[in-house]
Amino acid sequence: LLAARRNKDRVETDELNEAVERVVAGPQRRSRLIGPKERQVIAYHESGHALVALSLPFTDPVHKISIVPRGIAALGYTLQMPTEDKYITTQVELENRISALMGGRIAEKLVFGHVSTGAQNDLEKVSHLARRMVCEFGMTEALGPVSYGKKEGQVFLGKDLGHEKNYSELTAQKIDEEVHTIVHRSMDIALRILTDRRRDLDALASALLEREVLEGSDLPAILGQTVAPDTGQETGTAQR
Amino acid sequence: LLAARRNKDRVETDELNEAVERVVAGPQRRSRLIGPKERQVIAYHESGHALVALSLPFTDPVHKISIVPRGIAALGYTLQMPTEDKYITTQVELENRISALMGGRIAEKLVFGHVSTGAQNDLEKVSHLARRMVCEFGMTEALGPVSYGKKEGQVFLGKDLGHEKNYSELTAQKIDEEVHTIVHRSMDIALRILTDRRRDLDALASALLEREVLEGSDLPAILGQTVAPDTGQETGTAQR
Amino acid sequence: LLAARRNKDRVETDELNEAVERVVAGPQRRSRLIGPKERQVIAYHESGHALVALSLPFTDPVHKISIVPRGIAALGYTLQMPTEDKYITTQVELENRISALMGGRIAEKLVFGHVSTGAQNDLEKVSHLARRMVCEFGMTEALGPVSYGKKEGQVFLGKDLGHEKNYSELTAQKIDEEVHTIVHRSMDIALRILTDRRRDLDALASALLEREVLEGSDLPAILGQTVAPDTGQETGTAQR
Amino acid sequence: LLAARRNKDRVETDELNEAVERVVAGPQRRSRLIGPKERQVIAYHESGHALVALSLPFTDPVHKISIVPRGIAALGYTLQMPTEDKYITTQVELENRISALMGGRIAEKLVFGHVSTGAQNDLEKVSHLARRMVCEFGMTEALGPVSYGKKEGQVFLGKDLGHEKNYSELTAQKIDEEVHTIVHRSMDIALRILTDRRRDLDALASALLEREVLEGSDLPAILGQTVAPDTGQETGTAQR
Amino acid sequence: LLAARRNKDRVETDELNEAVERVVAGPQRRSRLIGPKERQVIAYHESGHALVALSLPFTDPVHKISIVPRGIAALGYTLQMPTEDKYITTQVELENRISALMGGRIAEKLVFGHVSTGAQNDLEKVSHLARRMVCEFGMTEALGPVSYGKKEGQVFLGKDLGHEKNYSELTAQKIDEEVHTIVHRSMDIALRILTDRRRDLDALASALLEREVLEGSDLPAILGQTVAPDTGQETGTAQR
Amino acid sequence: LLAARRNKDRVETDELNEAVERVVAGPQRRSRLIGPKERQVIAYHESGHALVALSLPFTDPVHKISIVPRGIAALGYTLQMPTEDKYITTQVELENRISALMGGRIAEKLVFGHVSTGAQNDLEKVSHLARRMVCEFGMTEALGPVSYGKKEGQVFLGKDLGHEKNYSELTAQKIDEEVHTIVHRSMDIALRILTDRRRDLDALASALLEREVLEGSDLPAILGQTVAPDTGQETGTAQR
Repeated sequence: LLAARRNKDRVETDELNEAVERVVAGPQRRSRLIGPKERQVIAYHESGHALVALSLPFTDPVHKISIVPRGIAALGYTLQMPTEDKYITTQVELENRISALMGGRIAEKLVFGHVSTGAQNDLEKVSHLARRMVCEFGMTEALGPVSYGKKEGQVFLGKDLGHEKNYSELTAQKIDEEVHTIVHRSMDIALRILTDRRRDLDALASALLEREVLEGSDLPAILGQTVAPDTGQETGTAQR
Repeated sequence: LLAARRNKDRVETDELNEAVERVVAGPQRRSRLIGPKERQVIAYHESGHALVALSLPFTDPVHKISIVPRGIAALGYTLQMPTEDKYITTQVELENRISALMGGRIAEKLVFGHVSTGAQNDLEKVSHLARRMVCEFGMTEALGPVSYGKKEGQVFLGKDLGHEKNYSELTAQKIDEEVHTIVHRSMDIALRILTDRRRDLDALASALLEREVLEGSDLPAILGQTVAPDTGQETGTAQR
Repeated sequence: LLAARRNKDRVETDELNEAVERVVAGPQRRSRLIGPKERQVIAYHESGHALVALSLPFTDPVHKISIVPRGIAALGYTLQMPTEDKYITTQVELENRISALMGGRIAEKLVFGHVSTGAQNDLEKVSHLARRMVCEFGMTEALGPVSYGKKEGQVFLGKDLGHEKNYSELTAQKIDEEVHTIVHRSMDIALRILTDRRRDLDALASALLEREVLEGSDLPAILGQTVAPDTGQETGTAQR
Repeated sequence: LLAARRNKDRVETDELNEAVERVVAGPQRRSRLIGPKERQVIAYHESGHALVALSLPFTDPVHKISIVPRGIAALGYTLQMPTEDKYITTQVELENRISALMGGRIAEKLVFGHVSTGAQNDLEKVSHLARRMVCEFGMTEALGPVSYGKKEGQVFLGKDLGHEKNYSELTAQKIDEEVHTIVHRSMDIALRILTDRRRDLDALASALLEREVLEGSDLPAILGQTVAPDTGQETGTAQR
Repeated sequence: LLAARRNKDRVETDELNEAVERVVAGPQRRSRLIGPKERQVIAYHESGHALVALSLPFTDPVHKISIVPRGIAALGYTLQMPTEDKYITTQVELENRISALMGGRIAEKLVFGHVSTGAQNDLEKVSHLARRMVCEFGMTEALGPVSYGKKEGQVFLGKDLGHEKNYSELTAQKIDEEVHTIVHRSMDIALRILTDRRRDLDALASALLEREVLEGSDLPAILGQTVAPDTGQETGTAQR
Repeated sequence: LLAARRNKDRVETDELNEAVERVVAGPQRRSRLIGPKERQVIAYHESGHALVALSLPFTDPVHKISIVPRGIAALGYTLQMPTEDKYITTQVELENRISALMGGRIAEKLVFGHVSTGAQNDLEKVSHLARRMVCEFGMTEALGPVSYGKKEGQVFLGKDLGHEKNYSELTAQKIDEEVHTIVHRSMDIALRILTDRRRDLDALASALLEREVLEGSDLPAILGQTVAPDTGQETGTAQR
């Protein structure tokens, strides 16, 4: 259950928001000069994340989208926050989260015709989540409800030596295949959403380039009636 | 024989119970807020563990079921305690234990239609037990009474470097297959029990949601006459 | 030759016996409570070791059998002692030793119909001996008189890093096969002996449950005339 | 995005140029005596880098070419600098960068008929970039948008143990094939350019042998009208 | 050439002999009691080494044979010493040395009908020499004059981490096959010699059991005219 | 380029020669007694190196040949020195260097009919050079201009852990094949030269046995007109 909490921040009052963003994306650094071309790429990238997250039923509500540079590496960010503390995450929630993470890269590809290094961090997260679905959460038919790479209490000089590869090459190959399948299926969903809602993607990117920061409450006006309700997560889970 | 004792707690008097629970699940933390939806998932998860354990002949008696959050990670727990010290564990006892561990996940799947990250820790335990049955206890036909991955007295900086892989890839593959088979067979048993006793599962989860903590002595009233006798373990072994 | 001595204790006078047992099995701990059911399993387990050892020509004489708990892990033990110092061990002696080690598990299986975790330590010893026969003593046709996994003088922080895998996967696979064959062949011998002498097995276990400790000199009376002569080891080697 | 910056130096004013060169190539060491034969090889090697970089649309402008020995290892160098800060790098920019890196080796082969150890460092960079395109940026069809070899937060004695091989042999083989394909495709592009512009290559090498250092502004006069515009990078990206 | 010297001791005068033996086999320990049966095995084992060494043209002269226990592990030893310092060893000398090392085991097998753990150390040396012939001296057709497992200057905490496996699985398999072939070929030679000279083997073992220590000069009288000349090594090399 | 310098010594004046030899081969140790047979082997070994080096167009001039023992391991040495500093090495120069390194072993084989441990160090150098040609310099068709085993900046306790195996088994196999091919091709060239110039080989070895040390200037008189010109290296490169 710890796992389900790892990617979340507990936020109870509105005044904690700046603190949260500071942790997630580092302090604001408006001094960093970003060219108009790259600013456009970043705007579409973040809009891709946000629009896919908004369009799927089992994702946390989009709280903020920003293209103000922060920290060392973050050129922009999309902040999703759950409406209440969560300790358990379902398979479909994980799949939707992967689709939202792929949204940035898909938007770049769709609009500019090519991919860039900008999605490197998203791919790491996506691969890590998909690998955990296969190896820790037992969420695939092929591998079944078995843990792979379980740490067997090994501690080395006070540090965990990480996952021991305690399975065969054949199993390693099946894991790779399942990870591949999960990532591609989630990517296809993101692609379909952004293709269908291309007009919304352009509207969101334009608004972002103009205003630099968008609150979750700004989104309905920009996207019209097509935004999913803010409480989509809870009702979504129940509808299943 | 040490192995057989590792997952047990020696409990001689009733006043040690709180101490045991504190060790197993950490101190009570009622302050942690868990949403109604997740509380329901947790209640069914723990009821699944308990009902499978109750329905199988070679398991320790269910002592307590709780959905009061404890410690850092435990959202709920089912506490089984042996009626006397045990130093030896038979193959069928291990298989039943695995089925009981799978009960939580199966209950979630049965009631809510999908699996979640909530069973991660159960899968780790299940895989570890199954792997020990294959590699340390020699309990499969395919691998036979041979120890695999035996530690050969290696100590590294005062720490055990864990199991050395001293077998071939082909053997590694057979081990994976046997682990897979054991886990799936035990899971099928859990699934059959919970499907057959779905009404009892609902009754148990309802009682748990209402009262938060159930003692072993509360269970007969909730489940009617269908509970296995508290001394099932001992007579069970003899019947075999 | 060091190897041949590793599993032995040099015992010259009778007064050293308690010291030896203390080292082998830890101090007596009669305070440990073992249930009647497990006590029965232990009695048959140790009787299995002793009876197979007694029935084979190239084993050390059985000096004592005990089901008084000792040390941390030992619930019972069978103590064999050579009649004189030995520095060299032959292949058939190793095979007989493996059969005697398998005797405990076979007895459990034969009498109670299932195997338990109680033989874990025996399996480790059996696998280690069989692996040494293949990899260090060159005692199989398939691998021949070649050392595998030879330590090449590597010392790491004052500790030996153990056997380096300096052979190919194909060789690793052959080693696994040979170990498997040795263990199964020795197990079959133990199974045949205990099946043939089932009455003696029951007699020995009964005596052990009654008296808790049996000296080697008690055995002829319990088993009748069927015990192999105490000097079987020496004459045995010569007969070959 | 950090990745995209790693090979760049932020240069805002002209007076920082010497500092940049000092960092990139070490202090000037005219005292090092290089024979006329090797000087010629170096001149062609650097001209190859520069001419391929100049001929491709998505490369940084060539700022300086030098065959004055510097530092410990650098016999010559070609300095490319972006016209503005860049935080994102596209796939085609990476491919063009690899082609420019291969330009030195291809020029040697073309002019002298054989390859030398002089390209060792270029090959390392090329292989590293190609491997990142496959494993971190997800830029190939065969492997897809999945990260391979992700560091899982392992720190060992304060040092990162580098990329963990967390994939199967079959995946390792596909990665090798894709790296091979990327490098060969980029090499073929460099070969075509230098074959087509052999006259320009000779002119550049001659000028370099005569003057030792060429500024980016010297190049149009040497190469005539065939140089790509200094702002090719930006317009290039837009044309795509 | 260092390698060729490793197993040698430089001995210039006769008074150093005791010092040499002390280093090779440890101080004399007549107090160690060895049974008559094992003493016989040891006598034949050492006689096997000596007789094979004496019968082959490219071995060092046998200086002494002893069955007086020495040091911790040595129950007996055969000491060969070169007639002059040697810095280079030929392939045939290595093959002969392996045959002489196998002589002890073959003699045990021939006389007592089975093998024992007594040859463990010989097998280690034999395998190490054969492996070096394949991997360091390039003495096989299949692998050719290529070094495998070369240390690339790695030092770890002041200790050499030993041979790095810098070759493929297919090569590892070929190395295993070649080592296997060398050892078996040398073993067949030892077997042929001891079968042909069985009477001499018995004579040598008898003399050893009677006198405990034999000097090289005692051997002609025991074996008659069949001993190879003491200078066989040098003339042998020239004849080839 | 550093790599190209690693095996070289910068020598500007003649008085540095003794210093160079001291570094390369250790201080003279005439006290070491080497038998006449081994002295002959060493003389032919060094003559083999020298004659192959002299006969190939892209090698450094032979400066000195000596069979005076030096340092710990060197029984003899052949010193080649470039006529000017070199920073780049071509493929054909590396191939010729490998042939010269194989010359010693081939001469032993040709004259004495068998190989010895004397070439162990040569084989290490040969294999290391061939492996670098394949893995670092990209000099084979099969593997292409890709670096294999690149160090990715890993430093472990202040020491470089050496080359990481960052490629697949299939690639490892191709690398082994290419190394094998390079070494055998170079060996065949050395064999052809020494077979053709057997008379020169005998003359050189005789002179060396008589005079112990030969300067490069002594060689024309010994070998007649057949020596390649001292400046063969430079003109050789241009002819290609």
